[in-house]
Amino acid sequence: METIQIRTGRREEMADITPAVRRLIKENGWSDGILLLYCPHTTGAITVNEGADPDVVRDITINMNKLVPLNGDYLHAEGNSDAHIKSSMFGCEQMLIVEAGDIQLGTWQKIYFCEFDGPRSRKIWAKFI
Amino acid sequence: METIQIRTGRREEMADITPAVRRLIKENGWSDGILLLYCPHTTGAITVNEGADPDVVRDITINMNKLVPLNGDYLHAEGNSDAHIKSSMFGCEQMLIVEAGDIQLGTWQKIYFCEFDGPRSRKIWAKFI
Amino acid sequence: METIQIRTGRREEMADITPAVRRLIKENGWSDGILLLYCPHTTGAITVNEGADPDVVRDITINMNKLVPLNGDYLHAEGNSDAHIKSSMFGCEQMLIVEAGDIQLGTWQKIYFCEFDGPRSRKIWAKFI
Repeated sequence: METIQIRTGRREEMADITPAVRRLIKENGWSDGILLLYCPHTTGAITVNEGADPDVVRDITINMNKLVPLNGDYLHAEGNSDAHIKSSMFGCEQMLIVEAGDIQLGTWQKIYFCEFDGPRSRKIWAKFI
Repeated sequence: METIQIRTGRREEMADITPAVRRLIKENGWSDGILLLYCPHTTGAITVNEGADPDVVRDITINMNKLVPLNGDYLHAEGNSDAHIKSSMFGCEQMLIVEAGDIQLGTWQKIYFCEFDGPRSRKIWAKFI
Repeated sequence: METIQIRTGRREEMADITPAVRRLIKENGWSDGILLLYCPHTTGAITVNEGADPDVVRDITINMNKLVPLNGDYLHAEGNSDAHIKSSMFGCEQMLIVEAGDIQLGTWQKIYFCEFDGPRSRKIWAKFI
């Protein structure tokens, strides 16, 4: 497997990793198959959503914080139970179709690493089949 | 990859695409492997859930609308931020097991395209490995 | 495909299936590829989250019950609509990377079968590519 390195800048953030994923595919000469992106962290996630209007990412982040607030009925002492919950809601992996040496995305889609407990240095693993 | 075409009829809808997926597998002679269903739209999702009692789909749809309401603290001007949030919560892809030329589903499972901002014409991409 | 058998003990439970998955990989001699874990039940899910502090699993379970309560605006007569909703939120499948004959997990990650309507006997299907 290959690794993408990310440095997030805020506690909650949706970082566009589309260019990094495209670069990885080109560098490895992956042409036709499926690509598994896997986040080995339990307070992050990977999702695909709109990339044209930055307000979409803002709306997702703000409203996920309302659904799963920072402070609540949590026993876990690290103060990041909200991040663990959001991680399972969005999921730690993303499957993508690769054809003609590129990921196949919808017109408005971008791939995001969702940081729920940053800022931190993060890794995304990639496995091509 | 292959494409399934759908026409949804309401703003929120869970459209059963199981027969279309089964047809695609037969037409392409896919026999043993895994099938990636991928939704290229950012206001839709794919999920697997119960198909015996239509009240289940109704209960999921109504209660997701309560969790993520149409109107809220949204800046995105298209009025469909709720749909983008629900898309990331359910996820835009679904992996399925194919054996003996058919998808392997649990007794009550059906595959649904989740429309969160319809009615629209939609596409599902399918890649078999 | 192969099958993992589980017996859950409570209505809501996150059962650590990591040892069972590791055993399956060894028994089948799977070495390098991707592994699809698939839950054929519509009131369960599979997720990856922290396994070091049991309070994390407790916090996820308790707070998912607050988001999606047992009693609500539900028509489905079996009294488990909450479980169906949570199943689609967490998702019925999980993809994992296999290298050198073992699943590749982050430092704190464990694989959980999420029981939302137990206690029951459950199955997880596994397909290696």
